[in-house]
Amino acid sequence: MSIDLIDAAAARLAGRARQTPLLSSPFLDDLAGRRVLVKAECLQHTGSFKFRGGWSALSALTPEARARGVIAFSSGNHAQGVALAARMLGAAAVIVMPSDAPGPKIANTRALGAEVVTYDRATGDRDAIGAEIAEARGLTLVRPFDDAQVIAGQGTCGLEIAAQAAEAGIDTAEVLVPCGGGGLTSGVALALEARAPGLRVRPVEPEGFDDATRSLVSGRIETNTRRAGSLCDAIQTPSPGDLTFPVMSRLCGPGIVVSEDEALRAMAAAFERLKIVLEPGGAVALAAALYHPEHVAGDAVIAIASGGNVSAETFRMALDRYGDAP
Amino acid sequence: MSIDLIDAAAARLAGRARQTPLLSSPFLDDLAGRRVLVKAECLQHTGSFKFRGGWSALSALTPEARARGVIAFSSGNHAQGVALAARMLGAAAVIVMPSDAPGPKIANTRALGAEVVTYDRATGDRDAIGAEIAEARGLTLVRPFDDAQVIAGQGTCGLEIAAQAAEAGIDTAEVLVPCGGGGLTSGVALALEARAPGLRVRPVEPEGFDDATRSLVSGRIETNTRRAGSLCDAIQTPSPGDLTFPVMSRLCGPGIVVSEDEALRAMAAAFERLKIVLEPGGAVALAAALYHPEHVAGDAVIAIASGGNVSAETFRMALDRYGDAP
Repeated sequence: MSIDLIDAAAARLAGRARQTPLLSSPFLDDLAGRRVLVKAECLQHTGSFKFRGGWSALSALTPEARARGVIAFSSGNHAQGVALAARMLGAAAVIVMPSDAPGPKIANTRALGAEVVTYDRATGDRDAIGAEIAEARGLTLVRPFDDAQVIAGQGTCGLEIAAQAAEAGIDTAEVLVPCGGGGLTSGVALALEARAPGLRVRPVEPEGFDDATRSLVSGRIETNTRRAGSLCDAIQTPSPGDLTFPVMSRLCGPGIVVSEDEALRAMAAAFERLKIVLEPGGAVALAAALYHPEHVAGDAVIAIASGGNVSAETFRMALDRYGDAP
Repeated sequence: MSIDLIDAAAARLAGRARQTPLLSSPFLDDLAGRRVLVKAECLQHTGSFKFRGGWSALSALTPEARARGVIAFSSGNHAQGVALAARMLGAAAVIVMPSDAPGPKIANTRALGAEVVTYDRATGDRDAIGAEIAEARGLTLVRPFDDAQVIAGQGTCGLEIAAQAAEAGIDTAEVLVPCGGGGLTSGVALALEARAPGLRVRPVEPEGFDDATRSLVSGRIETNTRRAGSLCDAIQTPSPGDLTFPVMSRLCGPGIVVSEDEALRAMAAAFERLKIVLEPGGAVALAAALYHPEHVAGDAVIAIASGGNVSAETFRMALDRYGDAP
């Protein structure tokens, strides 16, 4: 993985992905005791940074491979990112989703033009189902994070952070990144290494799903005991990837772990002070900046708000607990 | 009022106001039956476009006047816009607010460094109180809309729309603008007249507060019967201004009126599809684009989402009615 791959992805993404804003509020600065800048990737197409990696991977395919189409496994943000990128590029996309995935997520993925194939989580073998379809139709698998072009796409978010931080007069800061499999974390770390070496990435995870944090401590890939059930569903990946972990190990500072409740509280803060909608997994980095300031160094901190695909029900929970009382 | 005043305001606002993004979603396009582009002014500093006008007015003062300070009457977005601009410029700001204004709005305005003077809505004379303070301390009054420099500041939003629409390949469209006293509406109309003459402004108002719509029909300034009580509190101004109405009359197409319920529905749509937080008054233009497509012409429509300063209680109401069911 090199910066050249990220620069090439940025060239392919130009005019297609949104350049998301770096937001701030004096109220959040006061809360954290330092300047807080929030990279609002929830405003990216499909509501999360995943569109960057999806577009990067699909636009890097040969015309022949693209004409045959792509396949992805996902019940969430990666599904929508790949589906929209495929639609915009005129490629067929098959998304393999568990049959008990939330109805609106299946409906959204279909509405974006993808063919959704469901399987029974209890009895079906997802990988076997996917492999069979992929082989029969010559589809290319787009992995959610352990893929060089996907990492390069997520890294374009880091290029924007480097430029926007410089504009804001910041050359030294920690960059807090919500971390699942590490695609965004490692991509941003690589971009900052080349373009803003004073900015250092810190992965942020929810309690009980701190595989990256533990892996960075032990120096080898660790795995979560639980596989599901986090409110932060977007980042409950079992372990860092074979491609992402070495990058994180070389470039990232220690991980930070926040509670689910702190993620909800950060969602309410983002609602009130930034006017953006975050999902719990997308709010963990902001939660670390606001509620664990003692684990962060420097006069300024940058937090990536990685996604906003949250149900009204979960959002109401955040407002019920931490919004203003009626 | 000329474009030169807006260009000069833009030069003073450069690097101070945010250039807000023009957002979109294929789901909203499908709903409206045409391309929908949303200018997200809720992401402006203090959560509404009002910061533009506040900064424009304060930065245009002589150093002597600025040193004496400014005064404004407002219980809402104008208060916060003026307060933050004053703080950033090192000027004193007195904001006269009714004593029954929501506690958080008073607290926010104070936290932004302004001196808040409250009065009893039933027994106090707001104008007399303000005039006395202004005269005693030599403060300059910053009006919420009927002020050339305020209109010029709001017009910078129109300059951005002209550039962003061109980037999106749109040279002909209607631009729907939430309309209170008409500062944003007239400022944007003036900017578009000069920079994107194929874009035409249409004011949008809530039912019962359609003074601008009726004024455009009758050709003279009409007044609302009710003075308060709209869920769209940010735009329940009694009538268009002496400066804003002639501009609107010359440049704007007919007004569009939406219901409060449609504003709530548009808030839920913006939550789900754009990941931004809107207040009811800030959502009326999007409501017109989505739920009154028959009143709009063309293949694309641009809606300004003018503000996001909404209580958690009101936001929950929108999600309860129009968010996904638990």
